[in-house]
Amino acid sequence: MRSATPSRTLAAALPTVVDGSTVTLQGHVHRRRELASVSFLVLRDRSGLAQVVTAPSMVLPPEETVVSVTGIATMNSKAPGGVEVTEPEISLLSEPADTPPFELWRPSLAAALPTALDYAAVAWRHPAQRARWEIAAASTAGFRQSLNVQGFTEIQSPKLVETATESGSNVFMVDYFGRPAYLAQSPQFYKQQLVGAFERVYEVGPVFRAEPHDTVRHLAEYVSLDVELGFIADHRDVLAVLRTVLVGMTEAIKISAPEAIERLGITLPVIEEEIPVVHFAEALRLVGAPDDEPDLAPEHERRLGEWARRTHGSDLLAVEGYPAVKRPFYTHPWTGAEVPGGPWTNSFDLLFRGVELVTGGQRLHRHSEYLAALAVRGESPEPYESYLRAFAYGMPPHGGFAIGLERWVARLVEAANIREVTLFPRDLHRLAP
Amino acid sequence: MRSATPSRTLAAALPTVVDGSTVTLQGHVHRRRELASVSFLVLRDRSGLAQVVTAPSMVLPPEETVVSVTGIATMNSKAPGGVEVTEPEISLLSEPADTPPFELWRPSLAAALPTALDYAAVAWRHPAQRARWEIAAASTAGFRQSLNVQGFTEIQSPKLVETATESGSNVFMVDYFGRPAYLAQSPQFYKQQLVGAFERVYEVGPVFRAEPHDTVRHLAEYVSLDVELGFIADHRDVLAVLRTVLVGMTEAIKISAPEAIERLGITLPVIEEEIPVVHFAEALRLVGAPDDEPDLAPEHERRLGEWARRTHGSDLLAVEGYPAVKRPFYTHPWTGAEVPGGPWTNSFDLLFRGVELVTGGQRLHRHSEYLAALAVRGESPEPYESYLRAFAYGMPPHGGFAIGLERWVARLVEAANIREVTLFPRDLHRLAP
Repeated sequence: MRSATPSRTLAAALPTVVDGSTVTLQGHVHRRRELASVSFLVLRDRSGLAQVVTAPSMVLPPEETVVSVTGIATMNSKAPGGVEVTEPEISLLSEPADTPPFELWRPSLAAALPTALDYAAVAWRHPAQRARWEIAAASTAGFRQSLNVQGFTEIQSPKLVETATESGSNVFMVDYFGRPAYLAQSPQFYKQQLVGAFERVYEVGPVFRAEPHDTVRHLAEYVSLDVELGFIADHRDVLAVLRTVLVGMTEAIKISAPEAIERLGITLPVIEEEIPVVHFAEALRLVGAPDDEPDLAPEHERRLGEWARRTHGSDLLAVEGYPAVKRPFYTHPWTGAEVPGGPWTNSFDLLFRGVELVTGGQRLHRHSEYLAALAVRGESPEPYESYLRAFAYGMPPHGGFAIGLERWVARLVEAANIREVTLFPRDLHRLAP
Repeated sequence: MRSATPSRTLAAALPTVVDGSTVTLQGHVHRRRELASVSFLVLRDRSGLAQVVTAPSMVLPPEETVVSVTGIATMNSKAPGGVEVTEPEISLLSEPADTPPFELWRPSLAAALPTALDYAAVAWRHPAQRARWEIAAASTAGFRQSLNVQGFTEIQSPKLVETATESGSNVFMVDYFGRPAYLAQSPQFYKQQLVGAFERVYEVGPVFRAEPHDTVRHLAEYVSLDVELGFIADHRDVLAVLRTVLVGMTEAIKISAPEAIERLGITLPVIEEEIPVVHFAEALRLVGAPDDEPDLAPEHERRLGEWARRTHGSDLLAVEGYPAVKRPFYTHPWTGAEVPGGPWTNSFDLLFRGVELVTGGQRLHRHSEYLAALAVRGESPEPYESYLRAFAYGMPPHGGFAIGLERWVARLVEAANIREVTLFPRDLHRLAP
């Protein structure tokens, strides 16, 4: 039933082919250049680019058309990789392509952001854009790998939930067989419950925030890299695991995406044996903010990032002890040495080059503490019944963190807008493609 | 700030500890047995169980309480693993636990399904239940690993979409900043679009089906293992990749979850070099169904599974050529040798031990084919505009498949109901915990 398909050679493998042998390349027409004496077709496949040389009389298919090219692998020191394909027979695997709204063969994607997003499926074909996602994919693999070797179990928690996870605001409502349900703002409640079963768990999955602000660093849907672990002394044990995870992500990028690093000119962070830590109260002093500020503004974070670089030579800075008033009810109170002000918590934010990348900390783990914490906030335990149940049956001291994948990549590649590193971003105004 | 925590020994590591040395175990009280002359406390941690021997006068905390036990590692050939902990000091890390609704120390989880699901966070603590999820986690890791080595890129597609992916039915509606959005029924449109950029992609993520039927094999939310690849000749190339993926999943279970295999008494499938394939028309004949049946009923699938085992000694059977009338508009028409009836398609279902596990096939890849296919069905291309756009700019011949993670695990462990292998199942009636 099948037509015999000639064995395909990837562009990157062309330099390894015997000079003068017949090869078949398959890919998109990346660029065509029709000169007086000769024409060039640059073919793009998942491995890279290859140059095909044709007689000037040959009519070349338009850019982005998908073609199969059979010809002679021919050494030419001027060709990319030292080998080009000559005497080609070119057949079309797609119809001749329409002209894309931006030229994919230029060194960088010269398109206004809205156009690039409207034509996302085409924009991601650009090698520089593609390299950004290769960084994301390698990071995700490194995240999992670093946790697998530490005895963590990967979980998959439901995204349709009965009660808003974090608070009633910023939550999307779903018509669930005629009754209301919500999209999970985080896997928080589920990863905690499963610490009781697996002790150490992680999840890579979408989270949903009905974010009413149109900023360069917020999305309505993003990928959260979530971790939770039991039998900790306090949030510093969580931070130690976070450090190993960031090392794993960085190493995975080095190993799996060296070409993306080079193409994008990325400087990977050097992660010290211990991530520097300052208390929230000290952080306020360092940036000259009033000592009753309950949170750090982006400008504060930027200046703390500079301070960490200057003082510790570090791309990373953990700010611990965030005020209880700005943390969710499940956050464990501060157990460290007394610091004036507060009440503080055993929680932290991790700043990466001056931008908040991770939120983490120790959680409450005793059932009675939860009831008390909800009472203090004037909240009924009733909506949290199935979550609180796990604590009544014994839970170890535990904590965890969440890394925003897109934020990590955006900061690494210095994208001005988080949408530039998201495959198909969702925000206040955008629901397609 | 931190109290010095004694270094913890995991239960499974106890046999490697020097006889007579002091150890600290931390975990749940799995079982207490207070006898006349001696009492036992069986402690459970993520690695397994350990026996602690105490004087009969000692009051032991109730089952599921989380404790820290410091004592002497003592050889005892009668103890599990040959070592027990004697002269223990026991401190509580949680409050004394409430009595669970089922006894976790019994060999199997003796609870009615609704109770087990209501108390999911507790039920997953049962070692046999936990083993089921270890099979799922290992399968997922094996899925990714087998694709990574074949040049696939992991993607993360949006779950909030503007248009229903597969059809207007079975779709959940979301209030998206005051306008309607939908939960993705599959990453189909996105994985196809990204074949244009990465050629070979996969995704592990939730999919949503507003499934109005209350059956033992349907969920409203499940984990889909999705694959799509370009530059194929037809659906048989897709099936060949599916085979390597199933081998990878099976091998990963063997390597990462040998104890789960043993505990559950699982027989892993033997996957032959080629998965046996029958045409849909032949499948109907084999089960004696009328030749104008457009689909296979579960009973047909069961009998085909028996036939595959009897005739080919195979746990797997691919049925190819499904009728176009039962396949989505993007399905490629049949290109094989003529078979009476039809029109048929280049698509397949994979039956695993007589249950449908995977749906896959070749897709259309030319823009004009899409417009024609929609026209034939009387559908407007307008709702699909952003999807169809990718095809106008050149797409290779491609295809893919999706494996339902929970179905795979349910069939492997012979669970009667798919909810038994889902961490927190969602269905017509269940939205919590």
